[in-house]
Amino acid sequence: MSAPRASSPPRAIESPAELRQRIAQARRDGKVIGLVPTMGALHEGHLSLVGAARRECGFVVATIFVNPMQFGPDEDFTRYPRTLDADLRLLAGRGADVVFAPATESMFRPGHATYVDVGGVANCWEGQYRPGHFRGVATIVLKLFNFVQPDRAYFGRKDYQQSLVVRRMVEDLDLPIHVEVCPTVREADGLALSSRNRYLSADERRRALAISKSLRLAKQLVERGTRDAATIITRMQGMLAAADLNIDYIALVEPESLDSVAVLDRPTVAAIAARVGKTRLIDNELIG
Amino acid sequence: MSAPRASSPPRAIESPAELRQRIAQARRDGKVIGLVPTMGALHEGHLSLVGAARRECGFVVATIFVNPMQFGPDEDFTRYPRTLDADLRLLAGRGADVVFAPATESMFRPGHATYVDVGGVANCWEGQYRPGHFRGVATIVLKLFNFVQPDRAYFGRKDYQQSLVVRRMVEDLDLPIHVEVCPTVREADGLALSSRNRYLSADERRRALAISKSLRLAKQLVERGTRDAATIITRMQGMLAAADLNIDYIALVEPESLDSVAVLDRPTVAAIAARVGKTRLIDNELIG
Repeated sequence: MSAPRASSPPRAIESPAELRQRIAQARRDGKVIGLVPTMGALHEGHLSLVGAARRECGFVVATIFVNPMQFGPDEDFTRYPRTLDADLRLLAGRGADVVFAPATESMFRPGHATYVDVGGVANCWEGQYRPGHFRGVATIVLKLFNFVQPDRAYFGRKDYQQSLVVRRMVEDLDLPIHVEVCPTVREADGLALSSRNRYLSADERRRALAISKSLRLAKQLVERGTRDAATIITRMQGMLAAADLNIDYIALVEPESLDSVAVLDRPTVAAIAARVGKTRLIDNELIG
Repeated sequence: MSAPRASSPPRAIESPAELRQRIAQARRDGKVIGLVPTMGALHEGHLSLVGAARRECGFVVATIFVNPMQFGPDEDFTRYPRTLDADLRLLAGRGADVVFAPATESMFRPGHATYVDVGGVANCWEGQYRPGHFRGVATIVLKLFNFVQPDRAYFGRKDYQQSLVVRRMVEDLDLPIHVEVCPTVREADGLALSSRNRYLSADERRRALAISKSLRLAKQLVERGTRDAATIITRMQGMLAAADLNIDYIALVEPESLDSVAVLDRPTVAAIAARVGKTRLIDNELIG
């Protein structure tokens, strides 16, 4: 009997060629291929995606790649948390069959010049506050889709607009991939899990709670009969301002088009982006 | 014995679902899938691509789709020649297993908003004179690639820049597809075959010959020792002007980067776009 080696995490595949080989074998074995693309710094939100993939697919590929193309020049690319060994242990614990963690150079070769632009749903919200962000997301997701050629791919609902952008890209480009969007995972007090929560000081952590609280407030207002979007947004603004958060946007929108809703007489997504100190957080809920 | 039915051409598949089904079956049978994407109005250039695919692949898919997205607003989309029945007979004669000829609505659904941009090699030449052209080409080719998921795809060297754009897209997006670029097919007198040659009057047909003649002139000049690009271009301009052609561009470039070459001390592509009356023609040759 060999002793457990707690200090040596499972290995990540760095080589695209090796990844393709492993996947080709799984496909020859008739397995359904599931893909969970991540930027690492994993939390229970990511792991719930792996869990869903594990339940539904015979072969689960998780990827870890901090994609420089989706960060703006003034954003947190360099300080984004990188926790590869811990990530590999967590992924193995949830039963990922393969973890692909390529070097930046093997994903973007010199002279890379091809980009995917998803219009429509990509233009507002994050598209407005993070120019180029969704171009970077769509391009890397398409590259990973082409590497892995999964049958199913898993994304978190916390990044609601991103999930719409990916779904739209898959539909518009005729990719034979089922995109599954899984529920947001929250702390006991309601804060949505995010790799960027690691940036928060204790004080910021307390104040950040106003984001999920204001989404719950919106939901309660609708349940109690308020239908006017402007009224709801004003109440949310008040709650976020009281916690000293800087609001990028508060939006009440139609779930598929992201068109603004003036009267909440139908299912509506409420979405927020706000800065707590230097940390920018997003969250959303289906209300009404 | 049934009589040949000359009046009934082979059937085209219009439904993406039926196409996927046929290809899935071929793949289950272990066949190598070859794709020849065309806009119809077929000539021997296209058919040579089908021939190459037939030699190298177990299952050959030809597509016929006049892609509105790659035509500019003042270009010839509406009058582009459409000869479906003749095309289907020609393709069957060369052994295409399946012809996919979708309706515009099934390729571009309402709300389509996703585009592929290939920078670098797509910016000059046709990219400059036909803004949006390569975005349209890259997007439709990627969609067809995703429908068919071919192992090999065949393009003609006559559209040299297009073949580079497709190769760059395949590389940048990690598509597991081998792109094969086949030689230009010419009339006996040298004119490169093109669906747009049908537009030419007898007089225009004679004058159009100056395009391939000026490419041969460039080749001869280099063979006889001329190395200065400006000198060669001036001689080509003279020959095209003598035939009363309107020149969009004459370019002498490095074959992979499309960077202009000043001194022809290496393999160089000479490329021309010129208008004969209302008809715009392109051609190119490797020289030096």
